[in-house]
Amino acid sequence: MRILVVNPNTTQSMTEKAAEAARAVAGPGTEIIAATSQMGPVSIEGHYDGALALPGLLAEIRKAEAAGVQAAVIACFDDTGLDAARSLAGFPVLGLCESALITAGLLAQRFTVVTTLERSRVLLENLSRHYGFGGRAKVRAADIPVLELEDPASGALDKLRRQIELALEEDGAEAIVLGCAGMADLAYALQQDYGVPVIDGVSAAVKQAEALIAQRLTTSKRGSYATPLAKVYTGGMAEFAPSEG
Amino acid sequence: MRILVVNPNTTQSMTEKAAEAARAVAGPGTEIIAATSQMGPVSIEGHYDGALALPGLLAEIRKAEAAGVQAAVIACFDDTGLDAARSLAGFPVLGLCESALITAGLLAQRFTVVTTLERSRVLLENLSRHYGFGGRAKVRAADIPVLELEDPASGALDKLRRQIELALEEDGAEAIVLGCAGMADLAYALQQDYGVPVIDGVSAAVKQAEALIAQRLTTSKRGSYATPLAKVYTGGMAEFAPSEG
Amino acid sequence: MRILVVNPNTTQSMTEKAAEAARAVAGPGTEIIAATSQMGPVSIEGHYDGALALPGLLAEIRKAEAAGVQAAVIACFDDTGLDAARSLAGFPVLGLCESALITAGLLAQRFTVVTTLERSRVLLENLSRHYGFGGRAKVRAADIPVLELEDPASGALDKLRRQIELALEEDGAEAIVLGCAGMADLAYALQQDYGVPVIDGVSAAVKQAEALIAQRLTTSKRGSYATPLAKVYTGGMAEFAPSEG
Amino acid sequence: MRILVVNPNTTQSMTEKAAEAARAVAGPGTEIIAATSQMGPVSIEGHYDGALALPGLLAEIRKAEAAGVQAAVIACFDDTGLDAARSLAGFPVLGLCESALITAGLLAQRFTVVTTLERSRVLLENLSRHYGFGGRAKVRAADIPVLELEDPASGALDKLRRQIELALEEDGAEAIVLGCAGMADLAYALQQDYGVPVIDGVSAAVKQAEALIAQRLTTSKRGSYATPLAKVYTGGMAEFAPSEG
Amino acid sequence: MRILVVNPNTTQSMTEKAAEAARAVAGPGTEIIAATSQMGPVSIEGHYDGALALPGLLAEIRKAEAAGVQAAVIACFDDTGLDAARSLAGFPVLGLCESALITAGLLAQRFTVVTTLERSRVLLENLSRHYGFGGRAKVRAADIPVLELEDPASGALDKLRRQIELALEEDGAEAIVLGCAGMADLAYALQQDYGVPVIDGVSAAVKQAEALIAQRLTTSKRGSYATPLAKVYTGGMAEFAPSEG
Amino acid sequence: MRILVVNPNTTQSMTEKAAEAARAVAGPGTEIIAATSQMGPVSIEGHYDGALALPGLLAEIRKAEAAGVQAAVIACFDDTGLDAARSLAGFPVLGLCESALITAGLLAQRFTVVTTLERSRVLLENLSRHYGFGGRAKVRAADIPVLELEDPASGALDKLRRQIELALEEDGAEAIVLGCAGMADLAYALQQDYGVPVIDGVSAAVKQAEALIAQRLTTSKRGSYATPLAKVYTGGMAEFAPSEG
Repeated sequence: MRILVVNPNTTQSMTEKAAEAARAVAGPGTEIIAATSQMGPVSIEGHYDGALALPGLLAEIRKAEAAGVQAAVIACFDDTGLDAARSLAGFPVLGLCESALITAGLLAQRFTVVTTLERSRVLLENLSRHYGFGGRAKVRAADIPVLELEDPASGALDKLRRQIELALEEDGAEAIVLGCAGMADLAYALQQDYGVPVIDGVSAAVKQAEALIAQRLTTSKRGSYATPLAKVYTGGMAEFAPSEG
Repeated sequence: MRILVVNPNTTQSMTEKAAEAARAVAGPGTEIIAATSQMGPVSIEGHYDGALALPGLLAEIRKAEAAGVQAAVIACFDDTGLDAARSLAGFPVLGLCESALITAGLLAQRFTVVTTLERSRVLLENLSRHYGFGGRAKVRAADIPVLELEDPASGALDKLRRQIELALEEDGAEAIVLGCAGMADLAYALQQDYGVPVIDGVSAAVKQAEALIAQRLTTSKRGSYATPLAKVYTGGMAEFAPSEG
Repeated sequence: MRILVVNPNTTQSMTEKAAEAARAVAGPGTEIIAATSQMGPVSIEGHYDGALALPGLLAEIRKAEAAGVQAAVIACFDDTGLDAARSLAGFPVLGLCESALITAGLLAQRFTVVTTLERSRVLLENLSRHYGFGGRAKVRAADIPVLELEDPASGALDKLRRQIELALEEDGAEAIVLGCAGMADLAYALQQDYGVPVIDGVSAAVKQAEALIAQRLTTSKRGSYATPLAKVYTGGMAEFAPSEG
Repeated sequence: MRILVVNPNTTQSMTEKAAEAARAVAGPGTEIIAATSQMGPVSIEGHYDGALALPGLLAEIRKAEAAGVQAAVIACFDDTGLDAARSLAGFPVLGLCESALITAGLLAQRFTVVTTLERSRVLLENLSRHYGFGGRAKVRAADIPVLELEDPASGALDKLRRQIELALEEDGAEAIVLGCAGMADLAYALQQDYGVPVIDGVSAAVKQAEALIAQRLTTSKRGSYATPLAKVYTGGMAEFAPSEG
Repeated sequence: MRILVVNPNTTQSMTEKAAEAARAVAGPGTEIIAATSQMGPVSIEGHYDGALALPGLLAEIRKAEAAGVQAAVIACFDDTGLDAARSLAGFPVLGLCESALITAGLLAQRFTVVTTLERSRVLLENLSRHYGFGGRAKVRAADIPVLELEDPASGALDKLRRQIELALEEDGAEAIVLGCAGMADLAYALQQDYGVPVIDGVSAAVKQAEALIAQRLTTSKRGSYATPLAKVYTGGMAEFAPSEG
Repeated sequence: MRILVVNPNTTQSMTEKAAEAARAVAGPGTEIIAATSQMGPVSIEGHYDGALALPGLLAEIRKAEAAGVQAAVIACFDDTGLDAARSLAGFPVLGLCESALITAGLLAQRFTVVTTLERSRVLLENLSRHYGFGGRAKVRAADIPVLELEDPASGALDKLRRQIELALEEDGAEAIVLGCAGMADLAYALQQDYGVPVIDGVSAAVKQAEALIAQRLTTSKRGSYATPLAKVYTGGMAEFAPSEG
């Protein structure tokens, strides 16, 4: 199996961290192909960054289609561009938030997502509701800029631990979901420390990708994710025009 | 008051139709400034078109900020880019779907949105739920490509009428919401014919924009719609980098 | 445009405050006609007061119909009698709670309503759910009898401020809704102080009224709000009997 | 036990029918006291009638309090005035819709309410949601004016049967709820005919009243249903002023 | 009337306490028949105990059918086996949680269930949602093993009181539901102490059973609770095989 | 990896079919161990069968724990005993309904579950709601007794196809979920015929099991699924007593 892990921000070190997490859980016959968006924000923090990350992300999805990958994982916890990528691609596309929530839901009745910034908290609450976990998942923000997760000296880990402890004490959390692709390397150690499942979205999404491929399942092209209709795109977006649909 | 009506697709005739609808309802002291996206799809039909329309849309929002508008209306019923635009702009930004649904909700307990293509139906059902109208609004697709609405000979109006009639007969609809900016010119005649309120999103959004300006209210910059943080954007998106936040 | 602002309690000073707020936001061509209920409670605090305020309120709606107003605003945050008034009137009728919540929803993802007494808190939570804001709006009671809002020396403002501060600290509120018509004069100053949108229901409702008139929209008479059927009313209520429907 | 069955419309024959249904199910030690509102509409069909029925209804509740009843049933399926009566009375107050829905919920997972007029359908759907049965109960209107139920020659029964049959065929209904007090006499025969539980609200409410009395339970006076605060009522409503709270 | 109160755990003293509560509220013509499961756990604390209590419970339901009871109450707050018993029995079957919640719902808008162990908290939250009270009922665990309720010296009552006080202070609870059959004897004293309704599930369920019998209503055999189909059961379960359906 | 597929009914041919489906999708290093319940019903059709299947199912889970499996799949679409098994086992336990729904949710916005008998329809609707798919999944019953699926001459496949066609035509289904373990062999052929994803629960659950093992995740033992407390079990259930917790 060939699975693309595409980082929709342009920071190469985050791509590498995600690829490493992906390879750690991938099955023996799975090749992980990592890609980094070539245009857009260096990190995705809130709606505006998320919107401008889309062309860079979708360009990588298109390239991957040509390169014959069988599934793609969008390595951002906001599930930026997930619906658009599913419409575009002929292979399944997985988001970190959706994959992590459904994985947590197999292990616990109630759980807490710990994300980076307050501006992403409600966005993730809304996603969680959209995916059907509104009554089961709480969301906490640890007040960590995304790129601080790349810097061990930033104190980010302490802030993250503090919110996990509050989730266990105050939320009745039975499991923890790490709400940023940049936390992928921390999951197992935190799980050992706190004695509850700690779910990383990259790992969760890669396993969902493998599961779909093994079941010979791909995105439905009936209704919501129908192939984009052929039409003209103008200006700087001309190259993205769908040629048929 | 100066209100921007921005068409996030690149079809000039749709912009003109929206601007006309806007001017027809605007207050005496309101200037409607119409803008058409300079890059992206010629119509927005589904998630992929919607994603690639964002840079062109946000570029117009930025220009308008510099030009001193006091509110903006995104003239697409999918509310494409609404959250991103609200984060970016220092003035209120209105979407057609949200504005039309809240308007319908003031006039009727149950209503039906009639949109263009089946691929947009579930997208609008999800938006409707997100805005709190999941239990009140149904969505029907009339199987009309968006640009057919620009062509009187296309038979689009008949298809639209057929769905309105089904909404009244089968859904118990007490009002009708027209689910595409390209239908803005049809609302009043349909209202006269069917004897129930028929809501056009462009008109609804323009009046919401005026209402917010008159109340001296603008988007909260606390939490979800906080100003984008200053950061580097790379590649073709560099010009969109937020300079402060 | 002629818009009725009707106070469903019998306290004249509250009518005046509401009328003042209405006039402050009304468009240049709008005439605000203020009316005070002529029978019923001096303030509406809970379900019982609300029920007995209805005849007085509906009498004013009837008079206004005869006087040719084009829309009415019921100046009580409980939206007392809103459905009955919509059934009765041939023009749109707006409630403060509904208008304020939809206005807040255009500006923020999460917000908090601050109302007067604990007995009104759950009533407003239920209204908020009914209007589709159950997952977005919290309600806090400031322990202020309604008529204390008419007395600057009562300490009511301090109690209100305390709850706003708690909403910002504990609820993650991105905006504040003032949950009583008697707070209409405080909104702008509080907005300046706290740096988040502060919405007053009277202002919000007046602008919705103008918006509907401009769009030539009125309450649907199909289904829920059908004109009352002609029938006999007996006893002290005989004068309210609908003559046709 | 002394239980008041109060008809909030002024049609004596409906009171008698409700009283008969009440007596048929009441326990051996229960006295049913029937009362008819002395002012207001002759039938309650929609929001406007419901609003103007309140003073007449609440006057009967007050009298009953003085007469020492231990519980009251409001014999209208719209649960008109239920919250206000609960606030006023020192004894439990039951509504037909709430009592019938919770009874049906003990017998079936899915059921259908058959009511009279289309204008009441959404009102009952909203009540059903409010009581927590939104996902379990459907509502159908049989197009029967309430007072036709008093006339055996009206054809009302045939219309009612037709909707019951549609509920069984199309809704997957496992039980039927009769959605008008005026149908109380029909329940048992319909149950025999269709072989599914058919619930009458008057019967259900009387048994809930007895159940609460036997458990020495009454309405909570903490929060939502706190006793009305003492205050002045003016005009024709002066007699309703609460004297203490 | 003959009503079975069946304790699905095997602790005789809990059966007696439940029977006593049942007899205290039963009507004059009602005979309470108490039964204790003859196989399974001595107390039900969590999903595993609940699952293994089912055969013992269903055996008692079968015996009762033969013995001519007219309704049954399952005396466990988890509503263990309620759906299976309803499918099996030709008479109505009541659960404590469902009966207590609907009773509380007649008395208060918001209430709190106080149960024994944390492991039962989410189970009851899910039940509460399933019954339609997700937005009205909170659940608190008092950290009391079930059998400690049988021991006055265990300190269990103090823990229970502490949670009731927190429910009143922090949850805005207007009423309290005791979330374990073993608390049946405490309800009235706690109600006297705290001045809010305190609901015991055994009492509530017995009165619902009487109410259904008086209304000549029983479980629908159409759809969800259809009589089990005749089929072979093997191994130790052979005796449970349905003989027809 | 060693994964148990346990059939909670006692029909060996259904176990074999499930095992075959499991092996067809399992990864190269995965050993599928099939087990059939040794006591209980020959098929599970409704709540009663489901309840009596639990001891036989849990006995197999216990044996598997001793035999060192790393995860278990309960091969019944009702997710019978899932919560109890998760509490008992030290390894993850997967249900067919939950696994199939989350898989479908990765591929489509709206989908339809086609199950066997009407008596299971509402049960699956409730499960679907519980898992968060209430707004996305519809359920249809094909009127097929479970064991007819074992008989190619029964006409069951035609009934199943008819419901799939109705799902596509009337429900707007974008994917189909097969709602019975006995349909596991049909999924791929139906997917080829209808051109939409067709999900089999056994396959989905096995892949979820592998995914959790690879991620070193197991059921949380904090809260809902805490290990059963040590206690006495009496009568025929004594062998099931938890020895520690």
